[in-house]
Amino acid sequence: MTHDLSTYRYLVVTEGQFGPLTSKTANSAVRFIPDRVVCVLDSTQAGRTVQDVLGFGGALPVVGTVEEGLRLEPTALLVGIAPQGGGLPEAWRPMLRSAIAAGLHIVSGLHLHLGDDPELARLAAEHGVRIHDLRKPPADLPVSQGKARLIDAYSVLTVGTDCNIGKMTAGLHIRDALTERRVRVGFAATGQTGILIEGWGIAVDAVVADFIGGAAERLVLQAAEGNDVVLVEGQGSLVHPGYSGVTLGLLHGSMPDAMILCHQPTRGCPYGGGNAYSWMPLPSVEEMIRICEGAIAPLRPSKVIGVSLVTFDMDEDAARAEIDRIAQVTGLPVTDPVRFGAGPLAEAIQRGADAKRSARAGSAPAAV
Amino acid sequence: MTHDLSTYRYLVVTEGQFGPLTSKTANSAVRFIPDRVVCVLDSTQAGRTVQDVLGFGGALPVVGTVEEGLRLEPTALLVGIAPQGGGLPEAWRPMLRSAIAAGLHIVSGLHLHLGDDPELARLAAEHGVRIHDLRKPPADLPVSQGKARLIDAYSVLTVGTDCNIGKMTAGLHIRDALTERRVRVGFAATGQTGILIEGWGIAVDAVVADFIGGAAERLVLQAAEGNDVVLVEGQGSLVHPGYSGVTLGLLHGSMPDAMILCHQPTRGCPYGGGNAYSWMPLPSVEEMIRICEGAIAPLRPSKVIGVSLVTFDMDEDAARAEIDRIAQVTGLPVTDPVRFGAGPLAEAIQRGADAKRSARAGSAPAAV
Repeated sequence: MTHDLSTYRYLVVTEGQFGPLTSKTANSAVRFIPDRVVCVLDSTQAGRTVQDVLGFGGALPVVGTVEEGLRLEPTALLVGIAPQGGGLPEAWRPMLRSAIAAGLHIVSGLHLHLGDDPELARLAAEHGVRIHDLRKPPADLPVSQGKARLIDAYSVLTVGTDCNIGKMTAGLHIRDALTERRVRVGFAATGQTGILIEGWGIAVDAVVADFIGGAAERLVLQAAEGNDVVLVEGQGSLVHPGYSGVTLGLLHGSMPDAMILCHQPTRGCPYGGGNAYSWMPLPSVEEMIRICEGAIAPLRPSKVIGVSLVTFDMDEDAARAEIDRIAQVTGLPVTDPVRFGAGPLAEAIQRGADAKRSARAGSAPAAV
Repeated sequence: MTHDLSTYRYLVVTEGQFGPLTSKTANSAVRFIPDRVVCVLDSTQAGRTVQDVLGFGGALPVVGTVEEGLRLEPTALLVGIAPQGGGLPEAWRPMLRSAIAAGLHIVSGLHLHLGDDPELARLAAEHGVRIHDLRKPPADLPVSQGKARLIDAYSVLTVGTDCNIGKMTAGLHIRDALTERRVRVGFAATGQTGILIEGWGIAVDAVVADFIGGAAERLVLQAAEGNDVVLVEGQGSLVHPGYSGVTLGLLHGSMPDAMILCHQPTRGCPYGGGNAYSWMPLPSVEEMIRICEGAIAPLRPSKVIGVSLVTFDMDEDAARAEIDRIAQVTGLPVTDPVRFGAGPLAEAIQRGADAKRSARAGSAPAAV
């Protein structure tokens, strides 16, 4: 709940880890709030541009030291990684010290709260800067009671065959496409990057396990206020051996009217921990649709109404062929929202929202 | 990891909440470690016996004040409730103060850690007593990587159509039945009461959400050491709107060879929060078996091999008829382990363990 975030200009630290697959938080900042990023700090890539490293991001510079970055007048340092497990690399501490001493606020999505680090907290107090721990949950979360099923707005959760497979990205592109269509959209951010972008939210993977659903419920109720559609940022996957608990809690707490399934055709096994999950094949899109719809069926009916693909590692013909194939097999709209636009998914959601509004109007007591 | 717990003699506080359905931790202490309970403190029921209130527990007295309880020479105070949400009722604070001042250790399974309460921590230090927060998780949990599927021991998780439906109780009765059969059993305690009874474990509902599976994985690996069978204490239900995330994380982290499904025939909707879940019917046993087996199928095959019923609120004929009916429908062994013994479930597990041992011996490289 840190709306201040929207005014910060970031020096983004990824030291030694800047790359298309390794610096998720940094990469999302570059993609979604480029106007608020002044540079990336990574001494192993200094002198290149962000475009050189990521394939997007344009002329944003990669710098080698905090001092070099300060010349670009950032107002905050953003920790640009979100490692499995979640602590601060000790080698980064001197950079954070220098940044605080130079008056930069600190923004972090690490599991380990930097505000609880005695040295950093003391330094921040001395220099009058704030430490924002994006993953620090509210202290008063409820246990979910299914209230999110009762909202007037049409709610859509992004789900996936895996973690790190475009659930937030799809949601943000769909949000923009719906906004263009003059649909009023609330985005319920559930991860550190979504919170960074939106300025509010709860990192559901960081709450105490009993309150995953309660966090999701609270987010949906809040995002529904004054909106026609709520897009809930999904997390993990119902089949990911490490993160599935978060995913099911989020599904049952958010009680979505519908789901958008995210998938990467080239991915063979769950993401994370090197080859930790190479023993397990990912389900197909059709199987995953059955798994997602089946997982919420005992609570309420909810359908997957579209498929969002990640195809950056396929040539365009192959990507289009795969989109056609999945559309054929599932009978659903399919797109890669980054590459081909989110239009088909936004349209499916708009149709769903219209149908829900009509159904509720029809079942409401008639005005005299 | 508090083996000291096994030496304590408890004054169990349930003030205003002692009853068959309201004081879960107290009731489990009375049932499973009666030799270590000296009395229950509840001024609204003072003068009665535990048997009068619960229908079991014999002549154990219910006292009205800490002072009265102290005459029975307890060495520790146990907080006997585990409310949804999880804080200490403020009205209980004076009782905890008196107990600490009298030299009693404090044992609590509340979500809110009493050791973090400044006043209680200071008092405990002054009087040289310890505060054990059963739900406080280790600080260094991993993300689950599926390692629990590789153990030599045969692992069994208790699952349920709901929370608070006998998963721990079934596990403990099965443990005793297997021990009688000279099977070496490790019990992986995953909730505050199980930890109280066993003296070690991790409360998986209290860990940060990303680490539910990792906590389960660590428990199973530890419980497997030197044992033929690992019984994993289940939590919640895959269809409980509040707790399903914990349940799926525990299933995927523990990677059981088999499951025992717990069910109460008279229960219509999920437990908790007054009538918060009355909008939702519970699945039948047959549906729930499909849901549980389906939820782990993408990771590994695992079957429900027995059904454990809670029938205390049915007359004996009705209970036996329901056991027969479910056995007929599912083709599985069915019992109420408290009422009719855990034998059929222990036998099914022993058969599974034998089959796993034979299969692994058969697939191992032959000795020369």
